[in-house]
Amino acid sequence: MTAPRWPLGPDATIGILGGGQLGRMLALAAARLGFKCHVFCPDSHSPAFDVVRSVTEADYLDFAALDRFAADVDVVTYEFENVPAETATFLSARKPVLPDPKVLAITQDRLTEKEFVTALGIGTATFAGVDSPEGLTAALKSVGQPAVLKTRRFGYDGKGQLMIRNGGDPIAMFHDLGGQPLILEAFVPFEREISVVAARARDGRIECFDVIENAHADHILKTSRVPAAVTPAVAAEARRIAETIAQAFEYVGVLAVEMFVVRDGASHTVLVNEIAPRVHNSGHWTIDGASVSQFEQHIRAVAGLPLGKPIRRGRVEMINLLGDEVEDAAKWLATPGAAVHLYGKTAVRPGRKMGHVTQVFPE
Amino acid sequence: MTAPRWPLGPDATIGILGGGQLGRMLALAAARLGFKCHVFCPDSHSPAFDVVRSVTEADYLDFAALDRFAADVDVVTYEFENVPAETATFLSARKPVLPDPKVLAITQDRLTEKEFVTALGIGTATFAGVDSPEGLTAALKSVGQPAVLKTRRFGYDGKGQLMIRNGGDPIAMFHDLGGQPLILEAFVPFEREISVVAARARDGRIECFDVIENAHADHILKTSRVPAAVTPAVAAEARRIAETIAQAFEYVGVLAVEMFVVRDGASHTVLVNEIAPRVHNSGHWTIDGASVSQFEQHIRAVAGLPLGKPIRRGRVEMINLLGDEVEDAAKWLATPGAAVHLYGKTAVRPGRKMGHVTQVFPE
Repeated sequence: MTAPRWPLGPDATIGILGGGQLGRMLALAAARLGFKCHVFCPDSHSPAFDVVRSVTEADYLDFAALDRFAADVDVVTYEFENVPAETATFLSARKPVLPDPKVLAITQDRLTEKEFVTALGIGTATFAGVDSPEGLTAALKSVGQPAVLKTRRFGYDGKGQLMIRNGGDPIAMFHDLGGQPLILEAFVPFEREISVVAARARDGRIECFDVIENAHADHILKTSRVPAAVTPAVAAEARRIAETIAQAFEYVGVLAVEMFVVRDGASHTVLVNEIAPRVHNSGHWTIDGASVSQFEQHIRAVAGLPLGKPIRRGRVEMINLLGDEVEDAAKWLATPGAAVHLYGKTAVRPGRKMGHVTQVFPE
Repeated sequence: MTAPRWPLGPDATIGILGGGQLGRMLALAAARLGFKCHVFCPDSHSPAFDVVRSVTEADYLDFAALDRFAADVDVVTYEFENVPAETATFLSARKPVLPDPKVLAITQDRLTEKEFVTALGIGTATFAGVDSPEGLTAALKSVGQPAVLKTRRFGYDGKGQLMIRNGGDPIAMFHDLGGQPLILEAFVPFEREISVVAARARDGRIECFDVIENAHADHILKTSRVPAAVTPAVAAEARRIAETIAQAFEYVGVLAVEMFVVRDGASHTVLVNEIAPRVHNSGHWTIDGASVSQFEQHIRAVAGLPLGKPIRRGRVEMINLLGDEVEDAAKWLATPGAAVHLYGKTAVRPGRKMGHVTQVFPE
């Protein structure tokens, strides 16, 4: 592989694996900075295909297509963490893949991710790996109940997880999840769900956006509010956690760390729930609510440009338009100050992320 | 022509004539709202080609290509006023063309434009049409000196115009401009150059952005500042002028009116210099400096959506990056709060608009 000269020049092409709304918004941010994008995705209806000139519609394991893709781009990045390891390895032999694929290897598996986080001295829910019915029985003893049994890989938006309470049938649940490698996590009686979206540049500099408070419905993000209603100590701890993780990964790009805030007597504890090695739904508010967006920060980082200093424009609220809530877009378009984003998806399905709305209020 | 249902649905495609940075930023704004774009431009290096999936690289008088283009889109708009009349007529028989081509017919000719404006009771520099050396001599008598001799059509950024002062050789200048139809305009000793960017929706509603103060260097826009340092009376008059023109055109979309502020004893007079029936360089600040951009307003208007209520985020300054000033981008990327926009042009030429920078300051 011949390494490119950093920063990438104005004629550079950024390759993006994944063609959903995150890839679309990454491509729009890249365009602002003058870069071209090439999106690789197996789905012919990929929202990101509509905003770039070069697309590859192929399977992630189509190595001939990956070879052509690599030849056309200067750097490769991705919008989702489930990029197959073989794909990342193949591409990184040809062009820089950022963030580094070693991050994928860790974050694709809930168990290795939690082990990585705890090794950094950062708290998580109590957890244990589960590979068998007997293992589940043992894990329930150490973790306690209620607890959440999750697949180690490929879970998102609540898919691949079941709550275990006293009186339930854990072994049946083990089988319901297909007998694949699982993780049992103690249920966390959190006071708030928060996230930190952080960008790390090639030179190790980090810029965090302000701490975000998230509300989920049916395991899908519904609203994000900034700043989170947490104490300065909690906010500082949340940022420290995100920065520690970004440094430990030698990360280049944007990552999001989802956390729980748990009341602990008179103070609070912050526990890591999940790391997303990519731009994140809870950071969408930054497009309209900050002087630089998470998407632009990611592009700046992978292009070797300096990060922006994020200046928040006020108190911000982001609302996801899920499924047929996309019909609310007309109402939001008529709401003064509301910024409406639609992802160009034509098929409406329950819970599908169709767009979002951001409102910025004076602080 | 079958009229579309308004507003356009999420699967609609907006056709854009012209592939420069204005077309590019229109396409990026359309993408935010979920629309697809198809850009038609004869230049293979069109910046707008990089941010859309469908492009037609063909001459504006290639009617077979125009026919295919019309078949692929739901509505046609344009990023420049010199769309050939035959092109507009051909397309408008097939799909709605917005703003209406009658606007092009008036604004493509400096003489008909000024006659249109004065017929609305709005002031301009004193002017007279010039078709011959004898006509120029007569025009100089009525207009006086200094005066500016301009081609009636196809002038931009100071091209096709010459200043006539006492002691010059007007007849030689007439011949220098190629003997085509000309207009002689009195030189206006202006105090400030301002512009108003206004959007008008299908239902006649108008939203103006705040009055912009512009500084040119060598006839090319260098900086725009908002709000303009004008009295409330001047600001109100400037907005009234833009609204009057938009209504008179039954305009749909964004237009910009460039005006001169002239001191008139203790008060001021506002004279129209030029109408741009399109998004305008002096409105680029709205991307980062307002809650809705001029580009999104234009897309909303031509898609039949309600206009946004523009809320300005502070005192705003926009600086064009002309020619090799694009190298300043690195400095601006490291400036907190500066929003950098590059247009994806690789060939640097003196005075070429390569990008712009917007800064928003607390008011």
